[in-house]
Amino acid sequence: MKTYLNCIPCFVQQTLTACRFVSDDESLHESVLREVLTLLKDVDMSQTPPAMAMRIYRIIRRRTGVDDPYQEVKHQTTREVLRLLPELRRQVREAADPFTMAVRMAIGGNTIDCGVGHAITVETVSKAFAHALDGPLDGDVKEFQTAVNEAKSILYVADNAGEIVSDRLLIERLPAGRVTLAVRGRAVLNDATRDDAKMAGYDETIEIIDNGSDAPGTILEECSEAFRRRFARVDLIVAKGQGNFETLSDAKGTIFFFLKVKCPVISHHTGCPLGHLLVRKKAE
Amino acid sequence: MKTYLNCIPCFVQQTLTACRFVSDDESLHESVLREVLTLLKDVDMSQTPPAMAMRIYRIIRRRTGVDDPYQEVKHQTTREVLRLLPELRRQVREAADPFTMAVRMAIGGNTIDCGVGHAITVETVSKAFAHALDGPLDGDVKEFQTAVNEAKSILYVADNAGEIVSDRLLIERLPAGRVTLAVRGRAVLNDATRDDAKMAGYDETIEIIDNGSDAPGTILEECSEAFRRRFARVDLIVAKGQGNFETLSDAKGTIFFFLKVKCPVISHHTGCPLGHLLVRKKAE
Repeated sequence: MKTYLNCIPCFVQQTLTACRFVSDDESLHESVLREVLTLLKDVDMSQTPPAMAMRIYRIIRRRTGVDDPYQEVKHQTTREVLRLLPELRRQVREAADPFTMAVRMAIGGNTIDCGVGHAITVETVSKAFAHALDGPLDGDVKEFQTAVNEAKSILYVADNAGEIVSDRLLIERLPAGRVTLAVRGRAVLNDATRDDAKMAGYDETIEIIDNGSDAPGTILEECSEAFRRRFARVDLIVAKGQGNFETLSDAKGTIFFFLKVKCPVISHHTGCPLGHLLVRKKAE
Repeated sequence: MKTYLNCIPCFVQQTLTACRFVSDDESLHESVLREVLTLLKDVDMSQTPPAMAMRIYRIIRRRTGVDDPYQEVKHQTTREVLRLLPELRRQVREAADPFTMAVRMAIGGNTIDCGVGHAITVETVSKAFAHALDGPLDGDVKEFQTAVNEAKSILYVADNAGEIVSDRLLIERLPAGRVTLAVRGRAVLNDATRDDAKMAGYDETIEIIDNGSDAPGTILEECSEAFRRRFARVDLIVAKGQGNFETLSDAKGTIFFFLKVKCPVISHHTGCPLGHLLVRKKAE
């Protein structure tokens, strides 16, 4: 998916938000902002938004000297979803259709996204899962379930820290031994890395790989050779969140996108209203 | 008032909004946006926000070839406030304190502002006046009334089209023959010009002058010599709206600012909550 003009003011706002996360120094914020504006004025709009965001967060890391501005938020949200997990698991188990409810909870967790301008608090996290229980879900979960049953190998491409805890509820219901969990190669925004996956409590039965990249999405040409080979080989890919949707919408393979529609650009692009839970199979 | 870092994403968004007002050509929007980003990357943050906005709207006018993108909106809102005027006048007349109610209605009209990112509709206009009836008003209207009684000459610096119709309710209650109404020298945003003042139905007893400038505020060094002389000479200045507040907060003279607090930057700067009606005397 290309970058829309409406993404540009959002990038400018994200730059300020991220800088303020790591520093109180207004002159540093201003100087980072000027560097990002310089980048944006010549931006290639045919790139995906995460390709642009990757370059912006590289600037922020370099200029602030902070490698992982969102580490504290990632830890907080991880702890919060771990605290909620037994109750969420009970809700999945007792649902009329536990598989669909597990899908709902996994997508509900996608609300925990620091890239869309809203502050993430303990309250937003618990509200997100309450909304996932019976909020509008667009897409065909049965089609996904059929694809799961037919797949010998599944690559589950995670999105954010915290969210990756609720992903456990769905991954537990996928065929054991067939699922590999993929995380980002390096901290960017509040996207989940190996450390976040470890903190999320996955046991040894799940293989965890990283994609070797610092983009807040999956830009295959930025990923490691090992990741690309795995990606090309699996039968089924589950891609969580807006960043993976934006970067993989033209990739090869059988891909199901699972996301919460959180910004007007994605709502416009998908035709799915803001706030809806979305399950979408990539067009062949 | 200087430009805050938070104004920058807002300028980027305003650029897109204004371009879309006058053209459906996405490539034109993109090229204007790139020119504005180039301007912003080197912006002098000690300037006021309207000084920056003036330069942005000059780019938009030059690149789109449209001299007054907001003309249609200005006409619509003017017609709408003219339609409401008899009812608003009745509410002022029947209020326990008609002078304060006239102040409220004049400030209520300041909601009609295309610079703060919200679309202005017939519905927003009537809601704005309903809110002005009893919404929170910060400031000392009595102090203003005393200053009015003592002033031999009053310069009423208007802000937006439509709003300038409701200004009539307050101007009618100021001493006849002492008030001069000032408008912008050229169309910018939906700010009121001579044409808008004429359409607002002022009779010949009110002298109308323009400031010779195309800034969405009152940047004295950008104004005509004649305006500056008048400004320096009068006993009392009423300055409507955020743009006049931002540009005149360090000017000489006895100035009362009347505005609706419509953006987080102004709310932070004034210490007045978003949505409040504000009457503030400039610090001596």
